[in-house]
Amino acid sequence: MNSLNIEFFGYFAAILTTVAFLPQLIKTLKTKKAEDVSLVTLIMFICGVGSWIIYGYKISSLPILMANIITLILNLFILISKIYYSRNIR
Amino acid sequence: MNSLNIEFFGYFAAILTTVAFLPQLIKTLKTKKAEDVSLVTLIMFICGVGSWIIYGYKISSLPILMANIITLILNLFILISKIYYSRNIR
Repeated sequence: MNSLNIEFFGYFAAILTTVAFLPQLIKTLKTKKAEDVSLVTLIMFICGVGSWIIYGYKISSLPILMANIITLILNLFILISKIYYSRNIR
Repeated sequence: MNSLNIEFFGYFAAILTTVAFLPQLIKTLKTKKAEDVSLVTLIMFICGVGSWIIYGYKISSLPILMANIITLILNLFILISKIYYSRNIR
């Protein structure tokens, strides 16, 4: 497998593990509910993605930076909507 | 920031975005419910993590391989328990 194909896998993986959070955000906004989504997982994951952004910046890797900035934004929206809707349920 | 610190960020990010799924798995097993967790997100994310494993194998990167194998296992358990509990609810 030449290096072009290998790089393709890296970009494919980065895109998939980034866009994957869009259906969760849409589902949360539609159902106005995210009780079963773990708050601790969201917070830990957001901190982890933030670290990936710092790491990507330090090693000047645009793919790592881009993928994780989008992932961060999607997960922040999921976190905010989870907190917002859980307040309205009480 | 010397290269040691930079590498630290990479490992810290990898560990956080891996272990982050443990609270979600524990919550799902405890509540026996994962209705609010998006099935599409889980499936896309698992495919993405699978691609990261192939990529990590091709470029012989142990951190990428280890982090994503653990992430894959955790997310497969979340997916299986979500499907199992949604069947029992009906």
